[in-house]
Amino acid sequence: MINYPNKKGPYVNNKINDMANKGMALEEMINRTNEYYLVHNIALVNKRPTSVKILKTVDNYRITDAVFLAPSTLDYVGVFQGYYLDFEAKETISKKGFPMANIADHQINAMQDIIKNNGITFAIIYLKSFNEIYLVDGKDMIEYAKNHKTYITHDEIKEIGTLITESYLIPVDYIKVVKEKYFKQK
Amino acid sequence: MINYPNKKGPYVNNKINDMANKGMALEEMINRTNEYYLVHNIALVNKRPTSVKILKTVDNYRITDAVFLAPSTLDYVGVFQGYYLDFEAKETISKKGFPMANIADHQINAMQDIIKNNGITFAIIYLKSFNEIYLVDGKDMIEYAKNHKTYITHDEIKEIGTLITESYLIPVDYIKVVKEKYFKQK
Repeated sequence: MINYPNKKGPYVNNKINDMANKGMALEEMINRTNEYYLVHNIALVNKRPTSVKILKTVDNYRITDAVFLAPSTLDYVGVFQGYYLDFEAKETISKKGFPMANIADHQINAMQDIIKNNGITFAIIYLKSFNEIYLVDGKDMIEYAKNHKTYITHDEIKEIGTLITESYLIPVDYIKVVKEKYFKQK
Repeated sequence: MINYPNKKGPYVNNKINDMANKGMALEEMINRTNEYYLVHNIALVNKRPTSVKILKTVDNYRITDAVFLAPSTLDYVGVFQGYYLDFEAKETISKKGFPMANIADHQINAMQDIIKNNGITFAIIYLKSFNEIYLVDGKDMIEYAKNHKTYITHDEIKEIGTLITESYLIPVDYIKVVKEKYFKQK
């Protein structure tokens, strides 16, 4: 979906612009990526289940009453070469960039806690109008939140983020970016 | 509950034997421990939510139909000084030791995947009849499962596991054991 030679803008006919993974939601693309990483011993990353409080079950099998709980964690957690990764996945159709309203305070707080404990944290941001997926470091997300910015504009994301490429088997190869971004100094 | 001077066996009157954290379930003790670790910037560890598939909601708020999903992960996941921790908590009233039937195949598989990716994985085992909590390394858990052992006997747990101590504020101070067990070589 991204980085292909004949790169077009957002207004191009989707049928021409299509690639294999194009139609998938970001979550689905990341899940497939994680399956590839698992099978090839590259990393182990799991999606956290939706946090619910179960109030009533039938025979301890069927849940007939439950409520959603406010989560205090990010979407994905995993391990890459012994190191801890914890990140949020977001997609937006905005043409301006990433609307900061799409990330909740508790998610910014979670990023701060992860950084305090030397974990690696970031957001994977899918700008659907530009057909681009970026990895934006947690520190940058926190910075934008603290400064009450309403958007990370497309130009800013290009500057602070790193474009994530895809291959046929790896829809969102974020570990490649993690290696470049966090492991060069280590 | 453990390591107190006047140590008694399992048949002693509980009312005499009691300490502050004694009556708590293991999950509650670990959750309180994790809160202490978080506040004191020692580690960030979260319990994974129960995995459910939501089938029906009212106004996207109340869940009126859902089923439990077979999880492929362990109870807790977190970060200590940048390193990935992923562990299972088990309690048993057995006087023989830890019944291996209490750990599922998918949990053993999860431990194998974590080890492949250099993560730290273990079981925290609360032997209620002995009033003792042990940390047993994932590799030992896998070994017992592969050899189709029905129990890790109390004597064996004493040998392969490490007793976890408590203090008033830290009901199950497993990070102390993690440091000794996994970070001396690092």
